[in-house]
Amino acid sequence: MQLADLSRGLDTIWVVLTAAMILLMEGGFALLEAGFVRQKNAVSIIMKVFVDISFGALVYYAVGFGLMYGKDWGGWIGSSGFFMGGDLTHLHLNISHDTYWLFQSAFVIAVISIVSGAVAERIHFRAYIVYTIFMTGLIYPIAGHWIWSPGGWLAKLGMVDFAGSAAIHALGGFAALAAAIFLGPRIGRFGEGGKTNIVPPSNLPLASVGAFILWFGWFGFNSGSTLSATNEAIGHIAVTTMLASAAGCATCILFTMLRYRKSDPPMVINGALAGLVGITAGCAFVSDAAAILIGAVSGIAMVFASEWLEARKVDDPVGAFAVHGISGSIGTLAVGLFAVPGSTAHAGLFYGGGWQLLGAQALGLAVVAVWGFALTWGTFALIQRFKPARVSRDEELIGLDVGIHGVPAYSQEHDFLDVDDLRNPR
Amino acid sequence: MQLADLSRGLDTIWVVLTAAMILLMEGGFALLEAGFVRQKNAVSIIMKVFVDISFGALVYYAVGFGLMYGKDWGGWIGSSGFFMGGDLTHLHLNISHDTYWLFQSAFVIAVISIVSGAVAERIHFRAYIVYTIFMTGLIYPIAGHWIWSPGGWLAKLGMVDFAGSAAIHALGGFAALAAAIFLGPRIGRFGEGGKTNIVPPSNLPLASVGAFILWFGWFGFNSGSTLSATNEAIGHIAVTTMLASAAGCATCILFTMLRYRKSDPPMVINGALAGLVGITAGCAFVSDAAAILIGAVSGIAMVFASEWLEARKVDDPVGAFAVHGISGSIGTLAVGLFAVPGSTAHAGLFYGGGWQLLGAQALGLAVVAVWGFALTWGTFALIQRFKPARVSRDEELIGLDVGIHGVPAYSQEHDFLDVDDLRNPR
Amino acid sequence: MQLADLSRGLDTIWVVLTAAMILLMEGGFALLEAGFVRQKNAVSIIMKVFVDISFGALVYYAVGFGLMYGKDWGGWIGSSGFFMGGDLTHLHLNISHDTYWLFQSAFVIAVISIVSGAVAERIHFRAYIVYTIFMTGLIYPIAGHWIWSPGGWLAKLGMVDFAGSAAIHALGGFAALAAAIFLGPRIGRFGEGGKTNIVPPSNLPLASVGAFILWFGWFGFNSGSTLSATNEAIGHIAVTTMLASAAGCATCILFTMLRYRKSDPPMVINGALAGLVGITAGCAFVSDAAAILIGAVSGIAMVFASEWLEARKVDDPVGAFAVHGISGSIGTLAVGLFAVPGSTAHAGLFYGGGWQLLGAQALGLAVVAVWGFALTWGTFALIQRFKPARVSRDEELIGLDVGIHGVPAYSQEHDFLDVDDLRNPR
Repeated sequence: MQLADLSRGLDTIWVVLTAAMILLMEGGFALLEAGFVRQKNAVSIIMKVFVDISFGALVYYAVGFGLMYGKDWGGWIGSSGFFMGGDLTHLHLNISHDTYWLFQSAFVIAVISIVSGAVAERIHFRAYIVYTIFMTGLIYPIAGHWIWSPGGWLAKLGMVDFAGSAAIHALGGFAALAAAIFLGPRIGRFGEGGKTNIVPPSNLPLASVGAFILWFGWFGFNSGSTLSATNEAIGHIAVTTMLASAAGCATCILFTMLRYRKSDPPMVINGALAGLVGITAGCAFVSDAAAILIGAVSGIAMVFASEWLEARKVDDPVGAFAVHGISGSIGTLAVGLFAVPGSTAHAGLFYGGGWQLLGAQALGLAVVAVWGFALTWGTFALIQRFKPARVSRDEELIGLDVGIHGVPAYSQEHDFLDVDDLRNPR
Repeated sequence: MQLADLSRGLDTIWVVLTAAMILLMEGGFALLEAGFVRQKNAVSIIMKVFVDISFGALVYYAVGFGLMYGKDWGGWIGSSGFFMGGDLTHLHLNISHDTYWLFQSAFVIAVISIVSGAVAERIHFRAYIVYTIFMTGLIYPIAGHWIWSPGGWLAKLGMVDFAGSAAIHALGGFAALAAAIFLGPRIGRFGEGGKTNIVPPSNLPLASVGAFILWFGWFGFNSGSTLSATNEAIGHIAVTTMLASAAGCATCILFTMLRYRKSDPPMVINGALAGLVGITAGCAFVSDAAAILIGAVSGIAMVFASEWLEARKVDDPVGAFAVHGISGSIGTLAVGLFAVPGSTAHAGLFYGGGWQLLGAQALGLAVVAVWGFALTWGTFALIQRFKPARVSRDEELIGLDVGIHGVPAYSQEHDFLDVDDLRNPR
Repeated sequence: MQLADLSRGLDTIWVVLTAAMILLMEGGFALLEAGFVRQKNAVSIIMKVFVDISFGALVYYAVGFGLMYGKDWGGWIGSSGFFMGGDLTHLHLNISHDTYWLFQSAFVIAVISIVSGAVAERIHFRAYIVYTIFMTGLIYPIAGHWIWSPGGWLAKLGMVDFAGSAAIHALGGFAALAAAIFLGPRIGRFGEGGKTNIVPPSNLPLASVGAFILWFGWFGFNSGSTLSATNEAIGHIAVTTMLASAAGCATCILFTMLRYRKSDPPMVINGALAGLVGITAGCAFVSDAAAILIGAVSGIAMVFASEWLEARKVDDPVGAFAVHGISGSIGTLAVGLFAVPGSTAHAGLFYGGGWQLLGAQALGLAVVAVWGFALTWGTFALIQRFKPARVSRDEELIGLDVGIHGVPAYSQEHDFLDVDDLRNPR
């Protein structure tokens, strides 16, 4: 047994365990979304999460990973590593290439899961599968290459994004926004005369525990992004993650008490998540105090963004854009303000590092947001050419669970149904 | 601090953490099964999982572990290690004996949990406790000894089963089949004139999150089976685990779309699990491509097996045999086809290793299947001699929750009930 | 790469991973409690858990940690480490101070979550926030200092409490008792003529999976308390944890079968937890056999304590006192009986260590119990001076979800509601 073997083993289990934690976040997304939407669509949203994790992993294995982390080609795309083949020595890892793939696959699955919430209750399942393939095979990997591959053009300009406020959350959030606008609001969401209608979440206990599972997974997400167990920053990363989410959550508890005269449960749940999203870029770079501030601001901004979207008649059933798009943007920019000297090549504006880092962050954020929005719009436009991306009016009114998947989420039957009725719902 | 101390500490936390992940799978089984059965039996199935984890751990501590991993006696059984006592030095571990026990106890609990699903909605609780004692004290440990103990006769013949497609899943699956046949179908499951009736799962969101928790735990199950954090295969094991489950899940999404004109949620959930079961034997021995193939085949085979059982009028409420028995068999045999040279003593048939490994796998599988089926049948026959293994017709119609445990799974009461009514339901 | 770096990295990931597991226990508490209370209060109890984790973490960061682990001041309180500032070198850790804080923050959140169950269905949300601040900023940190700070006066007297049967569970349990008595029983809980009324848990599957999540987290709780991955005791700690919880659970399965003629699901759930609470103090100090005994006794004592509280007309909706207060007391005292020689300064009474350790345990327990009870009572009395700690009769009858948070836990609406109705419920 050599020291190097031990070091490699230590890093390997660190990455495998944190990857597993991130993959468990799919269970969190499933619960969160199933709890937030109406009963009649609870299964259909979970089926989308199964698409995320299965199609997402396979497509990223075949294509996405190579485009993202393969040998750099002009700063734009990677060109090796498809099906884990070809030269990947430029990655200079202390873990095996496939262990690295596992961790990255957990990330791509998170990205697409962000979008799943925004299209809930109306997207056609078929269309969602196609979009998933584009997102995990092309849209995310290419943008990810720009930010996270050593040769990526945004990385070279100095943009930093520790665990993905931009690469994961802003990208996913703006993609979610595009998808939500493209599909249009759910029937009845916005009434006549500018009236906004709302549906109470079908199962808040489920949604809450989804948030706790996401919270748990986030420790893997952020701390695991060191890819090395001997990285000195691990403890600090976990602490800023905890503080920011606590701040986002506490802020929303108090702020909604003031604003709505009650502490609003869905906003509190999303407040904790907003804090987590906000700290994801800077968890390794900012101080504890900055983490608390980022979390608090992300929480409040999420509330306003939710209201703003509603006022604009954009229907995002679980608040994917408000949580991931807005807090991801805040987190990305916050690095430009609060990065402490020594943690990145240039310190943040408030630490005497000047405007350089903030500029790179702002540029990178703008690029990622436009890319995510535009490519998603384009993909949906393409899908629409062949088959409608949205379910029929009847299917939507019945609910996608019975309408598309032939089975309700919750059944109180005490007896049996005829198998043929169930398997041939229409 | 010596290198050896560090190595031992590293291996210890690896095994403890992965053991905890496997134990969390009991929460996954509980949710999966409670979601799949009817509301009126949701508590009763969860109570069985509590029996699994509590009686299972204690019986395995007292008896099972010694029979399985104690000093070999003629290749048939172990003979030391009862109550963690006696000589266990032949295990040659880098972790303490009790840490090893913890990991193995998580396995035995998984085995019995497989059976719990097949007997749902009709077994008597008392009978289930007795069966659990036999399964965790005798049936599994003895078969496990043959496969996994260094002196076991199947191990000596060259059978390999990395994390238990045969020892855990095929054994549990065939035991589940025996139990399901012995108890007979639920009242109303098969109607007059060869009619098959089906009940929609009572709570698909719960079942889904059960699957995600199982998926998470499986990374502990497979990767943790290295028992050493410096085993070079850990990353590869986690990757094949991920790919096979993704393939099983994606395949079932597409295949059920074709076959039933809708993507069937319960089949998709079971497809992911089938992929996981299928790769369990070979996760350390096969290539990524083989893992994807094994997962896909396991998924489709699970669909056909479910239909076949239904046609044979065997009632397995959660698909335990289709998922664990069939995919476990596929996984066990697949090692004989796909094991890459160097990973096992003999390579698989498709890698030039000849028929030797495949023969050992087939023999081992047949032995384990017959053993699991026969001993389970025998145990139930024995139980039946004293008390009925199945609840009364009235209890079954009321549901086991109220009928046996005196309390419904879900209650919408806003007020209180008289304590005496609740505690003395009959 | 030096051996020391590796050792530090190993310890860091061990503490971060186990801290994350403990934080996931909040999801477990949320499910357990939401499942045990009535539907109309399921959201409100979960909102309290969000208060625990968010306010708890922030207050403990600002104040509590310093009082607990700061430089000792006369054995009574700590005086540095507020906002992670000041001198903390006396901690002599192999991990960073903030990693240590993270682990400890997970503990404080657990303490306050214990109380949340006892005050369910009637406490005002505002009052709960204030109490949380006192508990996590003062009550727990000061008692914790006495027991766990190297300079603490109880520690100096020889009291030992490995992972907190006293410091966490007895403190939390007696605080829960005080809060339950102060607030009084829920309307209708105790009828006229000494009649006891009971409400069936609203969602037992949720409660059960909450227990499984808590069980999982407990491996982090107990084993992680070594703070070092090379501590030889880790495996043993995990094993005693497993055995005690299995014993508590199995005992309650059998005991309630005898006592109530049915195996009572809520008691079985709480039995597993009672076993876990009971072993928490002694997990590193007692033998496997003692662990089984402690678990079994904790389980049975929990049943009697629940009945006793009911007979005394104390209303503790989820059994917080019976599980945490009683089993925590048993566990604390059990160390004085069963500590094996060499594991603590003095062995337990049954191992020839005399009465010294038992005396220290009994004194420490008494101090912690009185402190937790008295300070909680005092805090509620203080709160009551300004605003009622309990909701109005109307709010209680409607339920706190709609009454205080404006939204029901479960909604079966298939259509939309007017946003203004929802956001301004009263």
